[in-house]
Amino acid sequence: MKQFFLLALIFSATIQGQAQKEDSIMIKKISDEILVNGKAYENLRYLTKQIGGRLAGSPQMVKSEQWGLKLMQESGADKAWKQECMVPHWVRGGKDYAFAIQPFGKLQQYPVTLNVIALGNSIGTGKEEVKAEVLMVNSFDDLEKNKNSVKGKIVFYNYKFNDTYINTFNAYRDAGQYRGQGASRAAKYGAVAVIVRSLSHAVDNNPHTGAMRYDSAYPKIPAAAIGLRDADWLSAELANPNRKTMVSLKTNGHFLPDTIGHNIIGELKGTEFPDEIITVGGHLDSWDNCEGAHDDGAGVVQTIEILRAFKAIGYQPKRTIRFVLFANEENGLRGGNKYADEAKAKNEKHVLAIESDAGGFTPRALGFTGSEEQYQKFLSWKPLIAPYGCTEFNKGGGGADIGPLNRALKTPMASLNPDTQRYFDIHHSKSDVFEAVNKRELELGAINMAALIYLVDKYGL
Amino acid sequence: MKQFFLLALIFSATIQGQAQKEDSIMIKKISDEILVNGKAYENLRYLTKQIGGRLAGSPQMVKSEQWGLKLMQESGADKAWKQECMVPHWVRGGKDYAFAIQPFGKLQQYPVTLNVIALGNSIGTGKEEVKAEVLMVNSFDDLEKNKNSVKGKIVFYNYKFNDTYINTFNAYRDAGQYRGQGASRAAKYGAVAVIVRSLSHAVDNNPHTGAMRYDSAYPKIPAAAIGLRDADWLSAELANPNRKTMVSLKTNGHFLPDTIGHNIIGELKGTEFPDEIITVGGHLDSWDNCEGAHDDGAGVVQTIEILRAFKAIGYQPKRTIRFVLFANEENGLRGGNKYADEAKAKNEKHVLAIESDAGGFTPRALGFTGSEEQYQKFLSWKPLIAPYGCTEFNKGGGGADIGPLNRALKTPMASLNPDTQRYFDIHHSKSDVFEAVNKRELELGAINMAALIYLVDKYGL
Repeated sequence: MKQFFLLALIFSATIQGQAQKEDSIMIKKISDEILVNGKAYENLRYLTKQIGGRLAGSPQMVKSEQWGLKLMQESGADKAWKQECMVPHWVRGGKDYAFAIQPFGKLQQYPVTLNVIALGNSIGTGKEEVKAEVLMVNSFDDLEKNKNSVKGKIVFYNYKFNDTYINTFNAYRDAGQYRGQGASRAAKYGAVAVIVRSLSHAVDNNPHTGAMRYDSAYPKIPAAAIGLRDADWLSAELANPNRKTMVSLKTNGHFLPDTIGHNIIGELKGTEFPDEIITVGGHLDSWDNCEGAHDDGAGVVQTIEILRAFKAIGYQPKRTIRFVLFANEENGLRGGNKYADEAKAKNEKHVLAIESDAGGFTPRALGFTGSEEQYQKFLSWKPLIAPYGCTEFNKGGGGADIGPLNRALKTPMASLNPDTQRYFDIHHSKSDVFEAVNKRELELGAINMAALIYLVDKYGL
Repeated sequence: MKQFFLLALIFSATIQGQAQKEDSIMIKKISDEILVNGKAYENLRYLTKQIGGRLAGSPQMVKSEQWGLKLMQESGADKAWKQECMVPHWVRGGKDYAFAIQPFGKLQQYPVTLNVIALGNSIGTGKEEVKAEVLMVNSFDDLEKNKNSVKGKIVFYNYKFNDTYINTFNAYRDAGQYRGQGASRAAKYGAVAVIVRSLSHAVDNNPHTGAMRYDSAYPKIPAAAIGLRDADWLSAELANPNRKTMVSLKTNGHFLPDTIGHNIIGELKGTEFPDEIITVGGHLDSWDNCEGAHDDGAGVVQTIEILRAFKAIGYQPKRTIRFVLFANEENGLRGGNKYADEAKAKNEKHVLAIESDAGGFTPRALGFTGSEEQYQKFLSWKPLIAPYGCTEFNKGGGGADIGPLNRALKTPMASLNPDTQRYFDIHHSKSDVFEAVNKRELELGAINMAALIYLVDKYGL
């Protein structure tokens, strides 16, 4: 009997070893296909250079949807379609600008142009500039301490991106509240506008936009981000007792009526379990002041590349794989919500959703959100995927667009976590262009996700 | 007695835990200092923009030595000095160029300029161009098969960089033999010159130089690298039966007499074991056709940054730490050899040497060469260093400049292994410029090395 168990054990280990070898060969095949014949980079060139920034509601949104649908078809989807959803339609409405000025006397260098950009969703200053004294604060605590001095002023949040975090997303989360809530928190005490230090540690002076939201309890006031070098300069000027620096700010943002947008979906039908769905995606929209190359053109073309590579090597999935380009991540999440709502309404069975929305940089980790048992299964695949870059398999993973699916159906979520060092140099600024993306780094991201999808498709979760 | 052992065990574990905590705090302190007050990036700007390419023997070599020595002093070295060594003095001697031409008839697009650059150490074509038919081969095997057709021709090695390797250094090693040995292997069969496909997978057309060497058994013939797009174009033209494509090549390289160069050395004297030496370094020389930003300006400024940061936080090492900017790595290794020779002659005791010479990219791994026992000790520090980027602690590590020390004194060697995806896009080409370096990636490289040096200094190896 003992011998039987031993034999069974050896047999089982051999089977497992054989399966591991097969998986390793298949993943290498996917990798070679993408590194040698990859189209992600040239697709990204088209998306960024021929279409460009594609904020929800813009003509470029429509163009990019058409492009995405066509590419899904050309890349071999069994079926490709547009999933309609209403999207907000915020427009910048003109050129944002600001000057530092001196109300008394004349200083040769004044007025000084400040490099600013209106925050997404913010209202404009109206026909005239907002011209006011500036109250600089370094934090919300600082604002509260000075609340009696806020009235009639422009509040300048100079909270610095914390350089000491190794994962730069921690700095982003830390400083993000000033962009998101800064306007309403200052409006509460009578501020007439806010200027927020860009969420970045770039060495340049480009301002970084991004979504803000108003608290309906307080008046809406204009809100803009300022480049880091100008933030430093303004901070020094405000500290100078010989100056009475004021700022004149002009922004033009406003909302048009909601309009029709779409998630773009391609599908490979499962051969054994067609009702079990694996979703992979990125978001098709981007801010209007950049090409949206890393955010999230990268995730878009990686998603399509996985489809292309699976077809090119003749891989027929057991489960259904959905390749999704989500609408309106940046200022509304309507695409992600729509996808989850429909999945719930149709009572679909979703096995896993994975998103790439942290830039097309060299892959380092896969993040995972699910049960402990599922995490252990996920973790068991690390030796197969680590040689391609994702050497860390972390707990906690997902993405803005797949979050709603996770909340609606408890679908396990994963994220591609590339290296974070360069992301906030370019994020939401005009530096987010095609040239900032490296071909191989982009491709490796697709490879690591494809490997995980292949394993989940084969073994379930 | 059992209880005594248990108590001793707990006590020892507590002590160990306490030490780990101290180490973790110290490494965080080093990291914060470098990320917040780091000078590496601005130092690199000066080295690349104010001095530029600095091949052994060039005026820029002399300037960079002066700069390095001064910076060692300013950064707080107890002692800084120049270690003299004779270096080779190869000069490019003028502009390299090549044309594809048609000997018969006239084709509108001809002659076609080819983007070429002479390989380092190669001879020039003389006053006139070398004009000859081209024999394209894809490998040395291919050359051997066609050896009877080589005489009088320019051999074009079109061996492609293998995209399927994830670590791009494997592709470099694989293809490197054509740059290194291609000229002599073709000269053996009577070739008049060689053109080598650049060792790169860049999407641009910039040619990549690098060292070659002649086998004294055969005549010396000119050797140049060609940009990838032109290599593809030339390959297609040569395959066209309606063409009789020839190439006209002009290069001007030659050696001047050996001249005096220097390793630049800064030292922090050990307080407890001053005779035990830890060496950290990069190489100060670079090719002449670029700014040498990643190769190896990054290693140079990281080396100096570690010195600066140790002084800035008041760290007093137990052992002596030497910060070394090596001379002439690219085409002679005279600096590394000199450093080892002198160490051996003086019977110095070297505990560890670590080198950064794989670019200033985001750190991923530390490589190590030493005894199994030493490797295990090294490996035990992984939890302390991994949070800063080097999540892999591999066997096998070192660097061209510290190799001689390892061979002379069996000194354990380590290397900083950053991510490799972008390196061969720019390596030895005009794209290796300051702008290709990211500030934080550069700084993280210094942090990971500093952490290892701190631990070796504290605990020995």
